[in-house]
Amino acid sequence: MNVQRRRRRNARARRSRTPALEQGPWRAIENTFPPVAFYSADQIEAIHDSSLSILESLGIEVLDDRARDLFAAAGADVDRDTGTVRPDRALMMEYVAKAPSRFRLTPSNHARAIEIGGRDLVFGLVAGPPNVSDAERGRRPAAMEDYRDLIRLAQFFNIIHLIGNQAVAPLDLPAETRHLDTYFANLTLSDLCFHISAIGPARATDGIAMMALARGESLEALAERPGVVAPISVNSPRRFDGEMARGLIATAELGQAVLVTPFTLMGAMTAVTLPTALAQQNAEALFGVVLTQLVRPGTPVIYGAFTSNVDMRTGAPAFGTPENAKANIASGQLARRYGLPYRTSNANSSNTVDAQAAYETQTALWAAVLGGANVIYHAAGWLEGGLTASFEKLVLDVEMLQQMAEMMQPPQVDATTLALDAIANVPTGGHFFGEPHTMERYETAFYHPILSDWSNYETWEKAGAQSATDRATGIWKQALAEYSPPELPADRSEALEAYVARRKEEIEATGL
Amino acid sequence: MNVQRRRRRNARARRSRTPALEQGPWRAIENTFPPVAFYSADQIEAIHDSSLSILESLGIEVLDDRARDLFAAAGADVDRDTGTVRPDRALMMEYVAKAPSRFRLTPSNHARAIEIGGRDLVFGLVAGPPNVSDAERGRRPAAMEDYRDLIRLAQFFNIIHLIGNQAVAPLDLPAETRHLDTYFANLTLSDLCFHISAIGPARATDGIAMMALARGESLEALAERPGVVAPISVNSPRRFDGEMARGLIATAELGQAVLVTPFTLMGAMTAVTLPTALAQQNAEALFGVVLTQLVRPGTPVIYGAFTSNVDMRTGAPAFGTPENAKANIASGQLARRYGLPYRTSNANSSNTVDAQAAYETQTALWAAVLGGANVIYHAAGWLEGGLTASFEKLVLDVEMLQQMAEMMQPPQVDATTLALDAIANVPTGGHFFGEPHTMERYETAFYHPILSDWSNYETWEKAGAQSATDRATGIWKQALAEYSPPELPADRSEALEAYVARRKEEIEATGL
Repeated sequence: MNVQRRRRRNARARRSRTPALEQGPWRAIENTFPPVAFYSADQIEAIHDSSLSILESLGIEVLDDRARDLFAAAGADVDRDTGTVRPDRALMMEYVAKAPSRFRLTPSNHARAIEIGGRDLVFGLVAGPPNVSDAERGRRPAAMEDYRDLIRLAQFFNIIHLIGNQAVAPLDLPAETRHLDTYFANLTLSDLCFHISAIGPARATDGIAMMALARGESLEALAERPGVVAPISVNSPRRFDGEMARGLIATAELGQAVLVTPFTLMGAMTAVTLPTALAQQNAEALFGVVLTQLVRPGTPVIYGAFTSNVDMRTGAPAFGTPENAKANIASGQLARRYGLPYRTSNANSSNTVDAQAAYETQTALWAAVLGGANVIYHAAGWLEGGLTASFEKLVLDVEMLQQMAEMMQPPQVDATTLALDAIANVPTGGHFFGEPHTMERYETAFYHPILSDWSNYETWEKAGAQSATDRATGIWKQALAEYSPPELPADRSEALEAYVARRKEEIEATGL
Repeated sequence: MNVQRRRRRNARARRSRTPALEQGPWRAIENTFPPVAFYSADQIEAIHDSSLSILESLGIEVLDDRARDLFAAAGADVDRDTGTVRPDRALMMEYVAKAPSRFRLTPSNHARAIEIGGRDLVFGLVAGPPNVSDAERGRRPAAMEDYRDLIRLAQFFNIIHLIGNQAVAPLDLPAETRHLDTYFANLTLSDLCFHISAIGPARATDGIAMMALARGESLEALAERPGVVAPISVNSPRRFDGEMARGLIATAELGQAVLVTPFTLMGAMTAVTLPTALAQQNAEALFGVVLTQLVRPGTPVIYGAFTSNVDMRTGAPAFGTPENAKANIASGQLARRYGLPYRTSNANSSNTVDAQAAYETQTALWAAVLGGANVIYHAAGWLEGGLTASFEKLVLDVEMLQQMAEMMQPPQVDATTLALDAIANVPTGGHFFGEPHTMERYETAFYHPILSDWSNYETWEKAGAQSATDRATGIWKQALAEYSPPELPADRSEALEAYVARRKEEIEATGL
């Protein structure tokens, strides 16, 4: 038997043991749950008003001249000694109104473009952890090969629509150039939109230029149809970092999308009550939104919220808590108040992939959905308050996200689904297993989980008594085995390689 | 040192090692989340209409003469050969309208009365499993001492408002008399309302008589202010069991509350699509509701829903699924269509207290809340699709229920919570830890979990790297250690003992 034939036979045998992972198609998700009003309209106005008072009376410290000049030119009070910018409410509202309520991001594969705004909902991969963990290799500092695996999983699982800013930090690569390696992985191992790094204009511009190369288009064409988004943090309370400001400006100038997210932990970066945290979050987020519109009116920009509480006994951040859920819902009310797309997260604080990780994630997820979130960032793989990306948690999250999407399918009520004939066919106390109505539909009638085990106790015990977390290990391994890279024309992939090589040389030589 | 003093010192030492479990007070919960419309008003009308067609054209098989007579006397078509009762829609709507939209259940401790209906939400203890499990003693057939411990935990945890019909089946006691032992445990180890067993009139009457003794009141007084509820199942599809019918009639005659719950697993007891399952559930539930009103107009009655799907590969029931969630939301629309209080469950199918148990429970719980449930049955302790009551799962559920209740606290927005002064006091990029506004509130500002661990990874690892499920074991043991029984006057407790002794003799002698 030749090698190829043997391989084919082995593959068949493997298939017969483990059926391919079953999942729905990659598709846009419309959030069919009506947004919940956690606060009354009057209460939202009070928070809005307070946030504008913060900007007018206290202002934001801005560590970048150009950003200060832009605000000054628009009429804001700028204190050159302290770097404090105090825009009045008329200025704020005038420029917030210039931001679009909805926009589209287009990656190299146009079929995977995403709409951001309205009732559209997209799920993003975890972003940022310095550590990675899985049941086989344990918890460890993240490396580039872990990064690549996480991108492969995001590409494989159709419920993930968007890649965040560095799924993990690949600590085995030099900090100055690793953004090039991660962009390259995003563009060759997946065909999804992604977040660029906006710590400084060079990193942002590299991401934009590489998306243009992957799409085979000019920067002008990319400005017409944006393909990436730059996440901008705020050093809460009330400080706008210089590198972040310059990253934001570079991104907006090139017509790409911006996401402004204050990280406002109640009791630490804000005062301890929710209304004050939301007012401060709102002031900081809107300040960033206005900066994008000062650079280039019409820049697509997302209102980001990341308000939760700390454990007041230890100061440790906590996520997926009742306070975090309230903030997820109420921040959506604020974003809609301004007609801005809304981003939040389904974060959790657990140190392991256990019941706490699941219930905290579900709390945050349901609240994000009821808050009308358009982007749920860190939707798959986040663990330990964001310090670890977990392969098992990613599978757990995929299951929860798939189920959430299934609950949003529009319901159909008609003669076929009401099935009076089927009811008439089954005697009282009987069962519907063999009914034609059942037989015609049983394979597709219900959602099929990838992770949940519904077998009875004895069957489950005989099969090894595995917890959901145990099973998740087999699932991500199978997903990586079944993964295949997207198609990218050779000339584009070569252009990307050349870009990365040239920029690495430049950065090594000049530091820029 | 005398024994008492030594005990006190030991207690103090124990306290210093492990602080007492912290929880909020026992209180009524108002559901502040607006109910979600999964189906449009037209779709709900179509399901309603289909359910009345089922009753008119196919009917319900009723295995009890008296129940059939009651329907016949009201004008329903009754086929005496087959036992089929076919009430028309006018009859159904006339009698459904007689049921109250809201009522109160009063236990021996009047401070623990519960309101059922409107926006009130009560959480019930798991009910019915033949098995029990915990991490120390494993999974085993349930015994009376397990039953008592579960009642103690329901009494201890203030988030539990209501005891279901037998937290577990105490298999070490004779089936004919064990209801007496469980009622006695409910009434002496707790002071909560509970579900009686309504398999036959004698079991129902025993529960009602014993609640009257515990309240020190007559049966007439109990009829004025009901104290117990009888859960009535339907043998879906479309069969009303004789013992259940007689239990329902006895309960309604004595003015106590009834809960009618068809157990409608899509693909097994109903056809495979959700609208047909809901139409059948609706027909069966309303049929039971009407029977209560035929017996005694104004009988308090709850619309129960238990619609989920089976795993079509194995036929095993599945809970906490997307289909179950949709049913939890839509059933609330139906119950409100008739102005009836609504009961559903936060069930799950996991075989162990893992991430699946948590995410399925959360899915069902959020959907129940968004469905406007008034009673969430099996809210604490349910595992394995209802075949096991788990001590660790009970703690996990208490945590999730407490958090849900916390999210329903009415929000306050005012100058104090907006805290503009506190923001002004903290420099840009600073922190709020030491601020007077923080210091005055830090102990009470946020929800305190009983189970969640928010410590950082290193601290968590040093403390033993316990999962939430591991920690839950310590918590239920501590709760049992801290538990103290409610006060019941000695004469009432003696009257209860005498009642149980007399009835056991009667049942042994006569079987009734």
